[in-house]
Amino acid sequence: MTNSKPNILVVNDDGITAPGIKALMHVMKEIGRVVVVAPDSPQSGMGHAITIGKPLRLDKVDIYEGIEMYSCSGTPVDCVKVAVTKIFKGKKPDLCVSGINHGLNNGINVLYSGTMSAAVEGAIEGIPSIGFSLDDYTWQADFSHTLKYIKELALQVLANGLPTATLLNVNFPAGGHIKGIKICRQANAKWAEDFDERMDPYKRPYYWISGVFQVNDNGEDTDSWALDNHYVSVVPIQFDMTAHHAIPVLNSWKFDV
Amino acid sequence: MTNSKPNILVVNDDGITAPGIKALMHVMKEIGRVVVVAPDSPQSGMGHAITIGKPLRLDKVDIYEGIEMYSCSGTPVDCVKVAVTKIFKGKKPDLCVSGINHGLNNGINVLYSGTMSAAVEGAIEGIPSIGFSLDDYTWQADFSHTLKYIKELALQVLANGLPTATLLNVNFPAGGHIKGIKICRQANAKWAEDFDERMDPYKRPYYWISGVFQVNDNGEDTDSWALDNHYVSVVPIQFDMTAHHAIPVLNSWKFDV
Repeated sequence: MTNSKPNILVVNDDGITAPGIKALMHVMKEIGRVVVVAPDSPQSGMGHAITIGKPLRLDKVDIYEGIEMYSCSGTPVDCVKVAVTKIFKGKKPDLCVSGINHGLNNGINVLYSGTMSAAVEGAIEGIPSIGFSLDDYTWQADFSHTLKYIKELALQVLANGLPTATLLNVNFPAGGHIKGIKICRQANAKWAEDFDERMDPYKRPYYWISGVFQVNDNGEDTDSWALDNHYVSVVPIQFDMTAHHAIPVLNSWKFDV
Repeated sequence: MTNSKPNILVVNDDGITAPGIKALMHVMKEIGRVVVVAPDSPQSGMGHAITIGKPLRLDKVDIYEGIEMYSCSGTPVDCVKVAVTKIFKGKKPDLCVSGINHGLNNGINVLYSGTMSAAVEGAIEGIPSIGFSLDDYTWQADFSHTLKYIKELALQVLANGLPTATLLNVNFPAGGHIKGIKICRQANAKWAEDFDERMDPYKRPYYWISGVFQVNDNGEDTDSWALDNHYVSVVPIQFDMTAHHAIPVLNSWKFDV
């Protein structure tokens, strides 16, 4: 970071009109020069999807005074890619922040979440990146208690950087009684799916995905534990998916081919 | 695995009519009872996306004699979820195989790939899972040289299992001159994006994503190296994204909040 104000890319998955991104961009405006590139419609659950079968649209919009904003027809990851390439034109921003998501992204949700995938893409691009999420799925969610933590975490990342090829997954409990920040690991937790089967007017079935989030982890060092105990959870995330510990196991196999 | 034939779930991201999944399901039929659940249209680049904003359709189809097949309107990950919940009804298959993808999924592509994300979802569900991909993006790709390796790897996984919470990412060079199987790590490699800007008939710009795959890794233990040197690359993948080595670094930060 130079002495000039840092350039900050703000993205999300709930769409450009979401209250969560409004809260996030206003905190970032206290720190640096903000550019917002967000989906033109909700993109929750889009994971690390990119748009390759159809073209993208990118429109400059004027919603909040004094903030440079673009609406993109693509996924959260598309937003980061197009921002870096077409808006920042290869001069990387100093920070990429994603969110604030309306809903938690702890445990395995980092893989399903468009919010977190946008932050992962920022990190792949070599930008210090953070995803923020709140345990409130409603459009009326109150983000006010999260703002001082978001500002502090962003300032720390700008000042310290992050270990190579990592980013932060930050989740907030709902409500104002936060005890502090806990550095955590991702909980062993997954969705036990169900599908709500209905019949359309033409007598053909259709399905809505549903499910229950199951934490199969008693550790007190997990994001799920921290959130249950009124802490802000901060999990360092990596995008190298190699299971290094499994390499010797596989090397012991004898292949008959 | 019991003495009865194993139940094998076959998925992909190129869609139910792709030649790659046809090749894969016929190899699997030599090993076990096959159930195919595949997207009704191409879903390349869908990553770990799930469908939550609209309902899913699931239709039994009869394309290849003697194979139970379903076409799904959702993403590759949706296909796995709906297969486990609605078709296998909670009795997990013994193996989940995804592909054969028309195109490589080495390096960072594991995150963008619908093929690999379907295999990751299989592993999250607790099913031994493998994703297969070939270095040929055309519909006319020749899969014949891959089949004996696919059968051997599937049999080994059925016999040995896989280390907890891991799966395999298997990539094949194009052409028949394969030297053998290499157990690898994911190469440090990413896309250098570009966007092809065009003008529509109404004078509004639109963008097609493009780019060049850049391998920033000189290691001879990577999937990219193995493929360049005519080996089948096998990378064990994990879905715990925690950067465990970064936890002590973050714990050394002093938060002023």
